[in-house]
Amino acid sequence: MNTAPRDALEFPESDRGFLEPHLPPQDGSAPQLDLPFTTLTFATSLDSSLALSPGARTVLSGPQSKAMTHYLRSRHDGIIIGVGTAVADDPGLNCRISGVGGLWSAGEGRGRAPWIITAVEKPGAEKQALLERYGGRFIQVKMVRTHTGRHQIDWPELLVTLKSNGLQSVMVEGGGHVIKSLLSPPYMSLLDSVIVTIAPTWLGEGGVVVSPDRRFDDDGNAISAARLKNVKWYPFGEDVVLCGQIKLSD
Amino acid sequence: MNTAPRDALEFPESDRGFLEPHLPPQDGSAPQLDLPFTTLTFATSLDSSLALSPGARTVLSGPQSKAMTHYLRSRHDGIIIGVGTAVADDPGLNCRISGVGGLWSAGEGRGRAPWIITAVEKPGAEKQALLERYGGRFIQVKMVRTHTGRHQIDWPELLVTLKSNGLQSVMVEGGGHVIKSLLSPPYMSLLDSVIVTIAPTWLGEGGVVVSPDRRFDDDGNAISAARLKNVKWYPFGEDVVLCGQIKLSD
Repeated sequence: MNTAPRDALEFPESDRGFLEPHLPPQDGSAPQLDLPFTTLTFATSLDSSLALSPGARTVLSGPQSKAMTHYLRSRHDGIIIGVGTAVADDPGLNCRISGVGGLWSAGEGRGRAPWIITAVEKPGAEKQALLERYGGRFIQVKMVRTHTGRHQIDWPELLVTLKSNGLQSVMVEGGGHVIKSLLSPPYMSLLDSVIVTIAPTWLGEGGVVVSPDRRFDDDGNAISAARLKNVKWYPFGEDVVLCGQIKLSD
Repeated sequence: MNTAPRDALEFPESDRGFLEPHLPPQDGSAPQLDLPFTTLTFATSLDSSLALSPGARTVLSGPQSKAMTHYLRSRHDGIIIGVGTAVADDPGLNCRISGVGGLWSAGEGRGRAPWIITAVEKPGAEKQALLERYGGRFIQVKMVRTHTGRHQIDWPELLVTLKSNGLQSVMVEGGGHVIKSLLSPPYMSLLDSVIVTIAPTWLGEGGVVVSPDRRFDDDGNAISAARLKNVKWYPFGEDVVLCGQIKLSD
């Protein structure tokens, strides 16, 4: 009996093999760390854009890549997105892969309610109670200031908090600010796995570009900002999927 | 007897097969057009940079990709680079693949002397005679003004001129302005083949980025600037090689 709903996506077993080495271990073999297994994943154009403009829904990758994203979600305990993406995309962050632990969706009562991470004061007790009634939480973490003066979340504190709240693995999906922040030197070591889908298209100037802050060596010469090791490229439909780990030293 | 010089690069037969469908036909089966077979090829980082800064020599791709570039040169009658790249890199544009029609290099008298393409008046007769004595030429083509007000070369005129001068195929290697210009709507149809190597590194903000001008549909909405069809991705060492053709309509 096929109980998969009409909008279920197919991500066949034969496609899953290549991702397995880049995903949280399923057999509980993960070391007992204070940090969850953290995967950074996103899709870009050839000119490294996530979207045509902030908030624009941009279909970049093909249907196979979409199914892959839903499969990746099924393999993590939590999904992290920035507030800009949450407001702009109003994403379902649901998982429509049939046969991988059922369907769940924050919006339809079949999955987890959102955890809202904030650096400001928590809301009043009433709002908090409402969110918690549906399984959601407010999590307060401090912000830090980067060397360029921007405020950003204290990623180690956030990830430790999520782990202590029972999330063994998290997948960070975007948007641009969040990705850029995690690819910066203080935080890139937190990443266990990086999975980037690239579509064979140029969105053109003015898009939401993923490019980390520039880095310099001791002599003040520009060097590459971040590099991957243990690299695998998987052609996947019209797109390519790049899997690797952050290379922490040259 | 191995007569390959010490700095010859190896690009084994087994690696050549995947490129063949994307290269000028070798059997003379090409239609007799006014235009040469034109290949656009370059290497970028994940954040679509050609180099850390204009003029900076940036080692992006691995040794296999370098050997591939030299093989690609051996399969074209001419190589086109912009003046910025010529001045900044002082590139040899040589071909060090052993066993593919010998070695040639503009700088060492074993290959073609440069053809200098200019929109301004030709130089005096003496300079021209000097260049021509070594097999070089001055070619004068007109400049056109883009809708954004920039001056750029009249690509159809240039390519027709090169074909009428005996070049059946040309490979355009960069830099950023030249690539961007060829990926713009008036000229992208001139491209027979696009070959992009992507290295698993982010150079960071401030690099020499390849991103075409933004395009808009009839309603003024931004659309993707350029897209490839007949796409093939070839993992190649740590890099990936993307081969395709410009998709001219959706």
